[in-house]
Amino acid sequence: MNPDSIAWRPIGVIHSPFPEPAGTPIQGVFAPEAEGVVEVFEEFAEGLRDVEMFSHLYLLYAFHRSGPPVLSCVPFLDTQPHGVFATRAPRRPNAIGLSVVRLLSRQGGVLRVAGVDMVDGTPLLDIKPYVPRFDCRPEASSGWMKADPPRSGTAVADGRFGV
Amino acid sequence: MNPDSIAWRPIGVIHSPFPEPAGTPIQGVFAPEAEGVVEVFEEFAEGLRDVEMFSHLYLLYAFHRSGPPVLSCVPFLDTQPHGVFATRAPRRPNAIGLSVVRLLSRQGGVLRVAGVDMVDGTPLLDIKPYVPRFDCRPEASSGWMKADPPRSGTAVADGRFGV
Repeated sequence: MNPDSIAWRPIGVIHSPFPEPAGTPIQGVFAPEAEGVVEVFEEFAEGLRDVEMFSHLYLLYAFHRSGPPVLSCVPFLDTQPHGVFATRAPRRPNAIGLSVVRLLSRQGGVLRVAGVDMVDGTPLLDIKPYVPRFDCRPEASSGWMKADPPRSGTAVADGRFGV
Repeated sequence: MNPDSIAWRPIGVIHSPFPEPAGTPIQGVFAPEAEGVVEVFEEFAEGLRDVEMFSHLYLLYAFHRSGPPVLSCVPFLDTQPHGVFATRAPRRPNAIGLSVVRLLSRQGGVLRVAGVDMVDGTPLLDIKPYVPRFDCRPEASSGWMKADPPRSGTAVADGRFGV
């Protein structure tokens, strides 16, 4: 592997109800009923065997509609700037997105999922099973996010990071 | 963005006590005290501002020592094969690793972290704050992993996926 640059290619595409960055939920937890379809390309579909044994999955994807990277930004849930690595904002040096979704069903290479917070057409890079023993850390602090939780049941992007 | 191929470059390097894939913990939860050092390259260090407000971080990195991708494999925690997207095995079509670590301290671009499960010298791609409200799903099922939890307090790789 060339350590200076790593090339990846999409293994599929994520279809969602959100055509544009503005209006897309900023986290799946704010739109738990928003359904999407994960289409895994046929050449990779064999890799999905037994994925339906898990109720939740990590999706890793490219923020293909975000603007150029920044090192500091005012995230959606605050009014103060933070280093981008202290936020989940999409304009990152490596624009990799990470979401936990709920798996509703699988048919071959097609997954129906709930809790999507990606723009329609997002390139899929990887799927990993979510395992509470590995991934659930209820004791974790929420950093600057504690100060200002959104009060409504939903929170959507205003387009500040989109292109 | 060219949708056929996405190029990323490391933003830093992860130093760990594990020089080889064989012997590396298979998940950080099995080696919660294993300490590592995340070195973020100087040009990206500004992006770390306020990261120390969080107790836990996601590290995204390249599995630089894994073999070529497979679509099916026998993972460390089972004796049966599963599709690679139903496992956390490193030999994936896009070899992106994901771990939750505990942040011990930050000095400029250097983070001391605990619970590392990466091979020494792993190329770092991204850091995201772990936020329980977004990322903790205690109700998630553990799929095939339920059947065979490791009984000891630690579980390390046997080198089956390494190069």
